[in-house]
Amino acid sequence: MTINIALLGYGTVGKGVYRTIQQHQGRLQKLLSEEVKVVAILVRDIKKHTAPDQSVMLTNQYEKIQQLENIDVVIDAIVGIEPAATYLQSAIEKGRHVITANKEMFAEKSNILRELAKKYHVSVGYEATVAGGIPIIQTLKKLLNANKVTKVEGILNGTSNFILTKMREEQLSFDNALALAQKLGYAEADPTNDVEGFDAYYKAAILSELIYGEKPKSEQIERNGIASIAKSDITFFNELGLRYKHVATIEYAHSQVKCAVRPVLVESNHPLYQVEGVQNAIHIEADIVGSISLQGPGAGMYPTASAIIEDLIHLSEKDQEYTFNEESTLDQQRSAKTSWIAYGRSALQQLPEGAEIMKMIANDTWVVEIEGDLRIEDASLIQILGDATRLKEMKKIH
Amino acid sequence: MTINIALLGYGTVGKGVYRTIQQHQGRLQKLLSEEVKVVAILVRDIKKHTAPDQSVMLTNQYEKIQQLENIDVVIDAIVGIEPAATYLQSAIEKGRHVITANKEMFAEKSNILRELAKKYHVSVGYEATVAGGIPIIQTLKKLLNANKVTKVEGILNGTSNFILTKMREEQLSFDNALALAQKLGYAEADPTNDVEGFDAYYKAAILSELIYGEKPKSEQIERNGIASIAKSDITFFNELGLRYKHVATIEYAHSQVKCAVRPVLVESNHPLYQVEGVQNAIHIEADIVGSISLQGPGAGMYPTASAIIEDLIHLSEKDQEYTFNEESTLDQQRSAKTSWIAYGRSALQQLPEGAEIMKMIANDTWVVEIEGDLRIEDASLIQILGDATRLKEMKKIH
Repeated sequence: MTINIALLGYGTVGKGVYRTIQQHQGRLQKLLSEEVKVVAILVRDIKKHTAPDQSVMLTNQYEKIQQLENIDVVIDAIVGIEPAATYLQSAIEKGRHVITANKEMFAEKSNILRELAKKYHVSVGYEATVAGGIPIIQTLKKLLNANKVTKVEGILNGTSNFILTKMREEQLSFDNALALAQKLGYAEADPTNDVEGFDAYYKAAILSELIYGEKPKSEQIERNGIASIAKSDITFFNELGLRYKHVATIEYAHSQVKCAVRPVLVESNHPLYQVEGVQNAIHIEADIVGSISLQGPGAGMYPTASAIIEDLIHLSEKDQEYTFNEESTLDQQRSAKTSWIAYGRSALQQLPEGAEIMKMIANDTWVVEIEGDLRIEDASLIQILGDATRLKEMKKIH
Repeated sequence: MTINIALLGYGTVGKGVYRTIQQHQGRLQKLLSEEVKVVAILVRDIKKHTAPDQSVMLTNQYEKIQQLENIDVVIDAIVGIEPAATYLQSAIEKGRHVITANKEMFAEKSNILRELAKKYHVSVGYEATVAGGIPIIQTLKKLLNANKVTKVEGILNGTSNFILTKMREEQLSFDNALALAQKLGYAEADPTNDVEGFDAYYKAAILSELIYGEKPKSEQIERNGIASIAKSDITFFNELGLRYKHVATIEYAHSQVKCAVRPVLVESNHPLYQVEGVQNAIHIEADIVGSISLQGPGAGMYPTASAIIEDLIHLSEKDQEYTFNEESTLDQQRSAKTSWIAYGRSALQQLPEGAEIMKMIANDTWVVEIEGDLRIEDASLIQILGDATRLKEMKKIH
């Protein structure tokens, strides 16, 4: 028997999947007891591609793939919501398993695809949509069996992390670090998706749906980019031992899912501190096990292919329905103190009741603590991740 | 229906398991569609314990537990090879699933228990034996589906990591840091198991068996403790930007599994650098996905209980047989350069052919590079984990 695959898209990810399947045929056959074969590849511009093998159908018309009768699995390695979502829906309706690496599409359409897959008794794999090769979806699924996840903090976009790393290491401005990322192929000509946090938000939304069974409501979403961070800010905080990171946070508080993608300052005692360059990492807080972190390649040809192959191998596994809301013990735990840098007297004057000014660490720069979350409609606040005791004990430096 | 559990041992881990099962009854029942109940607890000294509930049989005789007819799962939360191994064997022979947190026993007896479990169609869970709450066994099982793991580096013993952290942070001698660890309950009165690397070796042997299907042969095992590291060494290397860590390495080279537990120096660009205190972490190199790291609590009442509950939930899953040796592409990849600190002229004189002296960074202190591994029967070599380019470019400091 053979598992026949149709591959949608033949860019970096598509090629990585094709090559991995070709090069590890023996391994896959032992695991699946069947041969795995890519029989069709969909590309946008047929003139720009050649079929990797004469037996593979290369086409620019999805209908031709839909009409093939022998396809078992459709792998989505294209970008953007449409036409990918429509293609996968029709694939599912024809009884085909689907696996996707398309985060924007899956963040938007996961519900529809999951419902449809249930109806047609097929699987939807999406390990590759979040943090490339890091097996975060599988790990969360396992953890969620025994644990309730109270919070996730992640560096989910390698491009913005690369830019912040280079700004600090080589004292580059945002524009110069971005230009370097573009030169190295880490950033697109239009970098909005990465540096403004849209890409990280898609991934956060997918994690939110897995962990809490729902996406955050729009009024519970905060999204701030990194383009306005000055080189001098990076240097200033680096001298204080703090690193800027573009972090996505998903948490459950007051019976609501909240999601924020924003620049924060990270203390060296926090696992996200040493996550540099294009690496991704995720820090998970769970009620029984405590805190766990995972770090690895967030993108790239083979890491993403590895995640897709994992999904291929687990296609037959039934998805557990998590029962997040059954015991609502989570709200009680959300009273931990958080630490913030507040800049300037106007920020201080707007601090809500309960916020405590701990220390002036430089002119017009204070460490502030509060129970829960601090929000002022103003850029003069930056959250500190990690234990900030050191800062509170520090002498004023300027 | 009820899943009836016998708990062997009622110390920290045993109590954690009991309380977790009691407190999360609703969650477990939804997942397993059955009630989970601890019906019997084995303790060594019955006078020191009271049954947590009148319906629980507390006994110091394993035979009484063996004779009960309604036990489905036996959870081993005791220490040492015997009598634990004998108890679990007889449990399996009576058709009971077993779950163990006992690393010394499982490092020695995993083969026997696995074979027996196969014969009697029951499962053996051992997530809790390695790195407490970090889901390392499950993650490796998943990764091993698509990937071949070429190398694992881990901080697998929280006690020795705590001691090295305190020696650096508070400039303590080994003896004083050990005394602090003992005071805080992190180290035993006899700390040999932890500080000499026996405990880390047990865990490495369990990982080796999972990844490579075999334990390292005795001539392929190196085990060095941390007791002889001087406070001044820690300070000296800390000033160079390097941290001492007690690292277990498992790798496959020249068709053999090799295992080393030894102090190494870690560069700040390596994921193990910021793993501090009693935390554990594992860095995995795999052929398709690249490098992945996991970090979390290595021990403790609830992290360990969480791992045991994970096993309980996955009892029915069949263990995959990994097919490590089928494609022997691994040896070819093992030619990466490794970096070392060599102390003193006598070390330099013993360097094998191919070793290259890169830089004298201080009096009698050199950075040396070599393809593959460097071994001299002498303590004057310390491996550097991470990219050591920075050191090679550094000016001599003394």
